[in-house]
Amino acid sequence: MKARIFVTLKPGVLDPQGKAIQHALAGLGFGGVNDVRAGRLIELELADGTGEAEVDAMCRQLLANTVIENYRVELLG
Amino acid sequence: MKARIFVTLKPGVLDPQGKAIQHALAGLGFGGVNDVRAGRLIELELADGTGEAEVDAMCRQLLANTVIENYRVELLG
Repeated sequence: MKARIFVTLKPGVLDPQGKAIQHALAGLGFGGVNDVRAGRLIELELADGTGEAEVDAMCRQLLANTVIENYRVELLG
Repeated sequence: MKARIFVTLKPGVLDPQGKAIQHALAGLGFGGVNDVRAGRLIELELADGTGEAEVDAMCRQLLANTVIENYRVELLG
């Protein structure tokens, strides 16, 4: 079983990495980029029978910093 | 217009960050995790009229290292 976890900064939290990407894109001539937010994508290969509740616990305890980040879990097959 | 870009390591490329996450999860008691791959999620807020070809060019020139990484573009509204 696979799970994909998308971790993104909460709205309002400053994102210097995103700003750096935006400036680099502008420097390359891509001017139409109004904002960039950088996040993480974590793909887990799980033993069968691992439930969504367990994946949620992994996110809360390790994978996401819930003070400043949101996360979304997508279970595949 | 928004675009989401998912950058993942190609299969076979070593992923020390993923391995570190896997070991940390095991240390927390989450034993049923067979593999972890760490990637990036980049959200772009684009000026209207920016085409998929332009986003693709951004990925190839800056956002992904196509030697070792795959990327997928998702355009939203």
